Order: sequence, then C-alpha cells, then structure tokens
Amino acid sequence: MNTENEKLNLTMLCDFYELTMGNGYFQNGLRDRITYFDVFFRSVPDNGGFAIAAGLEQVIDYIQNLHFTGDDIAYLRGRGIFSEDFLAYLRDFRFTGDIYAVPEGTPVFPKEPLLTVRAPAIQAQLIETYLLLALNHQSLIATKANRVVRAAQGRTVLEFGSRRAQGADGAILGARAAYIGGCNGTACTISDQLYGVYAGGTMAHAWVQMFDTQYDAFKSYCEAYPHGATLLVDTYNTLKSGIPDAIRAFNEVLKPLGIRDCGIRLDSGDMAYLTRRARQMLDEAGWERCKISVSNSLDEYLIQDLLRQGAEIDMFGVGERLITARSEPVFGGVYKLAAVEDREGHIIPKIKISENVGKITNPHFKKLYRFFGNDTGKAIADYLCVYDETVDDSKDLRIFDPEATWKTKNVYNFTAKELQVPIFKGGQLVYRKPSLDEIRTYCLQQVDTLWDEVKRFDNPHTYYVDLSERLWNIKYDLLKNHS
Amino acid sequence: MNTENEKLNLTMLCDFYELTMGNGYFQNGLRDRITYFDVFFRSVPDNGGFAIAAGLEQVIDYIQNLHFTGDDIAYLRGRGIFSEDFLAYLRDFRFTGDIYAVPEGTPVFPKEPLLTVRAPAIQAQLIETYLLLALNHQSLIATKANRVVRAAQGRTVLEFGSRRAQGADGAILGARAAYIGGCNGTACTISDQLYGVYAGGTMAHAWVQMFDTQYDAFKSYCEAYPHGATLLVDTYNTLKSGIPDAIRAFNEVLKPLGIRDCGIRLDSGDMAYLTRRARQMLDEAGWERCKISVSNSLDEYLIQDLLRQGAEIDMFGVGERLITARSEPVFGGVYKLAAVEDREGHIIPKIKISENVGKITNPHFKKLYRFFGNDTGKAIADYLCVYDETVDDSKDLRIFDPEATWKTKNVYNFTAKELQVPIFKGGQLVYRKPSLDEIRTYCLQQVDTLWDEVKRFDNPHTYYVDLSERLWNIKYDLLKNHS
Repeated sequence: MNTENEKLNLTMLCDFYELTMGNGYFQNGLRDRITYFDVFFRSVPDNGGFAIAAGLEQVIDYIQNLHFTGDDIAYLRGRGIFSEDFLAYLRDFRFTGDIYAVPEGTPVFPKEPLLTVRAPAIQAQLIETYLLLALNHQSLIATKANRVVRAAQGRTVLEFGSRRAQGADGAILGARAAYIGGCNGTACTISDQLYGVYAGGTMAHAWVQMFDTQYDAFKSYCEAYPHGATLLVDTYNTLKSGIPDAIRAFNEVLKPLGIRDCGIRLDSGDMAYLTRRARQMLDEAGWERCKISVSNSLDEYLIQDLLRQGAEIDMFGVGERLITARSEPVFGGVYKLAAVEDREGHIIPKIKISENVGKITNPHFKKLYRFFGNDTGKAIADYLCVYDETVDDSKDLRIFDPEATWKTKNVYNFTAKELQVPIFKGGQLVYRKPSLDEIRTYCLQQVDTLWDEVKRFDNPHTYYVDLSERLWNIKYDLLKNHS
Repeated sequence: MNTENEKLNLTMLCDFYELTMGNGYFQNGLRDRITYFDVFFRSVPDNGGFAIAAGLEQVIDYIQNLHFTGDDIAYLRGRGIFSEDFLAYLRDFRFTGDIYAVPEGTPVFPKEPLLTVRAPAIQAQLIETYLLLALNHQSLIATKANRVVRAAQGRTVLEFGSRRAQGADGAILGARAAYIGGCNGTACTISDQLYGVYAGGTMAHAWVQMFDTQYDAFKSYCEAYPHGATLLVDTYNTLKSGIPDAIRAFNEVLKPLGIRDCGIRLDSGDMAYLTRRARQMLDEAGWERCKISVSNSLDEYLIQDLLRQGAEIDMFGVGERLITARSEPVFGGVYKLAAVEDREGHIIPKIKISENVGKITNPHFKKLYRFFGNDTGKAIADYLCVYDETVDDSKDLRIFDPEATWKTKNVYNFTAKELQVPIFKGGQLVYRKPSLDEIRTYCLQQVDTLWDEVKRFDNPHTYYVDLSERLWNIKYDLLKNHS
C-alpha cells in the first residue's frame, strides 16, 4: 500500500458554481433544506445494451475525506465573493447525509438511479462534481472492458494503456475499472500495488535493440526470467528472425531446465496471418505450450474479427482504445434534483422539464428493483417505484413503459431484488467495501444474468426499465402542472 | 497552494515491463549504458495541421520526486522475480541524466522529438510510462482546446468538463492544458488553486428548482452576487419565462445599484435561434451589456456552425468534448531508442524498423530547428540534424522531404531557432519553469507564426519537417544494414 497516495484531498475538485450556490443557499436559509439527488445516465456508450457501474469505492473515500483545509479557505476568501459566515461553516464542513448506490460491477441501464444522495442542500450540491467524475470515469472503462472481454471469448485480456491514459488517475483507476469489467490484469504497476489489479509485462522493443543481436536479447531475457518468459518477436522481422530466434532461446535456455511454459508477443503486422504461422512454427519446434500474445490498437471489434479469421491468440494486450474508451470516451452520468423535504419532513417530488422528452427526469425519492425469472435466473426488467412502495413478488405484476404507456407487460414467477444498498447513513459509512476480486466476480456473474439479446454489440434489445403506477402518476401530475 | 496534493509519488506509475527490463539490464551489466530516447508522435489528432506540446511541468515534478519508498520495495520483493541487488539499487534510485524538451505551448509536428532523454538505460527505461502519459494527455487537451478557441474567433471559451473527465487528473490537469491552448478559464476550482487557471461559474438547474419560483431564484442570486450575475434561463422555458424572469431580476436588483454588467446562460435548445431572440429581448429591455453564454455538447465544429448562423454568443462553456478530446481522445506519443553510447562514449545511432514506412524512427541524438522567414515572421519549416551540426542561417539552405527525397526546397532569408532547450543536466533542473500565463501567451503567439493553411480544421497543409543531409545518410545506411 502506497501510503503517500492516500493523502490526496479532492474536496476542492468541484465546479466553482457548487461553491457560489452553496454560499447562496447559506445566505437564503436553505443550508439545511433536505434534498434528494439521483445520479443516472441517458444512453449506453457505443450503443451497447447495458453499462457496468463502477467508481463507488472512490466516492466512499472522497466522502470520508471531505474537508476544507486552511489553505482552501484562504483561497476562497481571496476570491472576494464568499461571506465570512459561509467560510466559517466550511471550516467545520463534513458530510452528514445518506447515500444509496448500486454495488460496483452491477449491470445498469439508462434512466435508473445508480446512486442517490439525501443530504442538506449545500452538502448535496458540493459533492456533485466529484461523484459524477468518479462514477462516469470508471463506469465508462468498466463498460468498455466488459465489451472487450466478451469479444475475447474466454481468452486472457490485459489492460496495457497507461501511457495513453488521460492523466495519472486515468491510468491507475482505469486499470481498476478494466479489471472490474473482466480484464485479467494490467501493465500498470501502481494499480497492482494500490488496488490489487495483477500487473504483468515483459519487454519493449528497446530491450531487443539494447543487445548486439536479437538472439542475445532473447537469451538474456530467458536467463533472467526463465518462468513464463514472453519474448517480443517483431522488432526486425517476425517470421524471418523473430520467431526463429525465440525458439532458439527457448531451446537453449528453457529446455535444459525442463520449462515448457513460455510466450511470444506480436505488436505489429497482420495478426491473423502472423499468429497462425507463429503457432505452426512453435508447434513444429515442440513449443506447443508457448502462448501467443498480441497488442497494437486492439478493441472489441478487431478482436472479434481476428478470432473469426482463425487467429491463434491466447492473450490480448489492449491499450489506448480501452483506457480512453476511444470509440466513445464519455459516460454521460448526470446529477439531478429529485425531491426536497419541507420543514415538516414531507418529501416533495421535483422534476426537470425539457423540450426533449428523453431528458425529462424521474421525480421523487425512489426504490430500484431488478426482477429475475425464477425459471431461468435471467434479469427480466428493472422497476422504479416510490421509496415507501414494496414489490410483492409472490403475485403477478403488470408493468408498463414510461415513455409508451400503452406498452404493458405481465411479470410472473419472478424474484424482485433491490439494487441500491445503503452506503452512508447520517454521514457514517454503513457499507462493507467488497474486495476488488469480489466486485469482479459479482460483475461477471451479473452479466451472465442478462439475455444474449441485451449483450449484442450492434442493435441490442432494449431492456425494460419501468415505473410503478404510483410513480408514473406523480410524474404525470408534475408534467401537467409545469406545462 | 494545496500542500496535501504535493506529496503524490508516481514513481510506481510505470508499466511493469520497465521494471523487468530494468532488473534485466542490471543483471546484464547494462545498468550504466548511456541511452538516448526521443518522445515523438506520428499524426495530429483530428487530422489537424499541428499539435500543442504540453505537460512538461508535470514531467519536471515527476523527475524531481522520483524515488522508491520502503513500501514500493516491499511490493516489488513480494513479486518474487527481482534480485536483491536490484532492489538495493532501487532504494537509492534517482534520475542522473539529461533531458531536453520543447517548451510547453510550442506548436509541434509529427516525427520531431518533443523531448529527448540521455540517461543510463535503467533510468531512461523506467521513466517512459509517465513521461508519455503526461505529455500525451496534456498535449491532447491543449491541441483540442486550441482548435476550439480558434473556432470561437476571439470570444471567451471556458473549460466546463470536470464531471466527465477521465479521472481527477483528467479534470485538474486537463483544465491546465486547456488554458495553455487558449481557453480563458475553467469551472474546476482546484485547477485555479493549484495552477492559477481562473475558475468561474454561477448556477446549476438545481438552484432554480430549489426556490418556489424561478423569479425568486434569480432575484436571490442577483442579491447574493450583484456583480456579473449570470442566470441560467432554460430550466422551464427559455423564451416564455427564463429570459423575462431574468430581465425582471436585473431590473429590480441590479438597476437600482447602477450595475449594467450581467449575463444569462443557455444549456439546451437551438442556440442559433434562441441567442438571437435573447439578444433582442435583452437589448429592448436596456440590458445591452448582458453577456450571453452557451454550453451543451459544444466543440469546434458546432461553434463554427453557430457563428456562421449568426448566433449572438459572448461566451462558450465547453465540456465533455474538450476535457476528453471526444472526437479523438488519444495522443499517440511514443518513446523510442535513438542511440546508445559505447564504452568510449561514442554515440551509436539506433533505428526501429517497421514494414510500415511511416513507423520507421529517426535515429541518433538530434537537434531540432524551426526556420522563420525574416520577411513574414512565419514558420517555414522544421529541420532535424545531428547533435553536433549547426545551421548557418546567413546562407541559403537546401532541405528535402525524408520520405520523398526528390522533393527539395530552398530556404533563404530566414532565422533558425533551436526548439529543444535543456531541462535537466546530470539530474539537476537547469530550466526556469515559466508561469502558466507565460506559457499560454507564448502558445498563442507561436500559433500566430503558422500560416493559415496549416491551421485549417480540414485538410490542412502538411508542414515541412526535414532532415539534414548528414542525418538522412545515417538513417539510410542503418536501413540498408537492417534489410
């Protein structure tokens, strides 16, 4: 554990308007007004059928570490627009509210709350920026990683993108999120040290160039790391010298030691052709257990194509297209007011109107259920209701599409599971943080509960996220009153 | 200055293979072999004509802070593949080499070295990952920001993307890079505190929803921040209620105070139509000095279109498409061995071959010049030569395209300027770090030295990056020897 890195205080990583609004709430007596905010997203990146929620652990760390230092207060005072009362309030600031969230690794769908905050207005507002940043970033990468991993059909996938990541956290937490989504490891050493994402890696082209000959480079490497030595064979010419030199090094160094596990890596050229030839050459030389790794601008589409063309690949190293989610590098999670409490503690639902029907929010403090079919174990639909409603899954239930209310569906023989769990209550952490391996296992198991139709890369089936009749009526009344 | 954040140690943010190679060099007596590595990129994002170099300050901080803690050594020992000799060596590890780089804010072109490292092999290898990460990330965002700023034709551009950034550094340093590229500020508070990127912002939709009426929300805001109050007018209906309520609040709160500077912001709807109508309504009400800001999925193309359609906009808030460089979120900087020194200190040039001609490297320890026309002040060409060559710009010079050697160009009446400057010598910082405002000013001034043809968004003119005859001959000999 790198203790130096635990001290990062991200309280000031907030949009400046959170502070101007906070000061404004303070001046207007709204400081302790209880508010409810939902984090949700409107569409799945890459037109996928579902996303993977991730980043909650970083939200927890952030909330627990939330405080303004003397330097922070001094900076804010220097801006000349904040009242001394408000600055004094910030000096003792901490989070005292409740947070509910879906566990990391859960497959999630548009318009359902991944996380809900119930807190005094200033607190709920201040945490907006970082909450969104943490959940958006890691959900983006976990979602992309899960696509890549599904394309690899059980083969090993390693995250190799640190050098092209958008900043240090992009690399470090990106590797964490990629692991949650199903990757088997990373090249990023510090992600292993901090989060237990297994880090591996062998050699760059520079290693090969540093020796007088390629064979010397390979031989020296096998001597230094006889167990599982993986040699990069494309520095000069893969088929003419790369693989022959590798086989010679394996024969001369590993064979006498009785070692049969080793590997080669290709980082350029036509992977379908070269890996088939490589497999043949290695097998003919008696190195059937030599694993073939490839890297170089891979993503789920190229992996799918390579496997379709009969490429002989045991391991994929996926770099820039995973760590930046290159094909769609934005996860569009938003943070919207869903309700406030009046002075008597009654919950008053709030709605955000938009000319674009798809941008209208789901009001109120809500519960989120997932229904699983008892016969198949598969996820049938998600269901949003008001916080004090419960679903009786011993009875049939009629659900309907909130945007096309004439589309109804009868659900029966199902088990209803609440997806959000309490994370903070009254500012105290009430959640046991699962280990990263637990999260990854949970993720892969939950993705298995989705029908294949929802998992297609292109044109997937739209999964049902429906509202209870009561919630729909509340929403409808709010819409009518505002128009 | 947030001192808590200065303690971050990123030494372990390296690809694991840097360490396995380091250990291997150590075992093979290559530890002190002097090596030369270049950082360069092969193509400009978004098919642009040039990029903006950025991230050097973070490279400097990283190099100065480079060290392995006891925890780091313990982690590495736990991996069971590193020799105790090597771990002891890492305990006292520090950077003792030289680094040369182009200053931040410099417009740069494919295949020229943005940064060159001369250092013992293990050191030069270890720093690869973070050097690339820092330069790739900030050069990506500075390059994108400069495009957006050029599209805005002198109007204010603010970076608004923290919540969609790929991790905390993506937000914090992304705002820094965006400022270098020409943005006028950010929404990200901590970027102001840490780097002096001016942070601003006023209100979110939640502010409007928190009050009984939109007018109450606007009035309270103007009372809290009478100077330059910017009101978000699209929560319910921009033209029907948003702008009328804003005008009423300006009239009732600001007018009596004699304040005429204020603003409105639109975050949805058709910006071309709505801003023209807004301008009209504000002018008719006597608020000619009210500024109109827009946000919502902006980038250089949309800004260009809006201005072409006569939109009345004073300020653009650019979010996710800038902070993630959404249209092309990867800056492909690479780190390649260019030379090694033999035991007598002779520099031996090295080349990396590839079947793809464009991927072949420029060998040797090099100098990088930019030629400016004496009559125009404009940049004519960049020129790479061997480290001990000099350009006599009092004479004409014939330069030629290294990939199409028959294309020659005569350069005359020019001034040659070396682009790389010494940053570290023998591990010591020898460079005065410029302030962020100096970097930004330098950047905008240097972009002005480029011809408009190079600055086109689509199909820009390819700027010349040519080799000296001697360097070309060395490259040609290496190519022949390897094939």
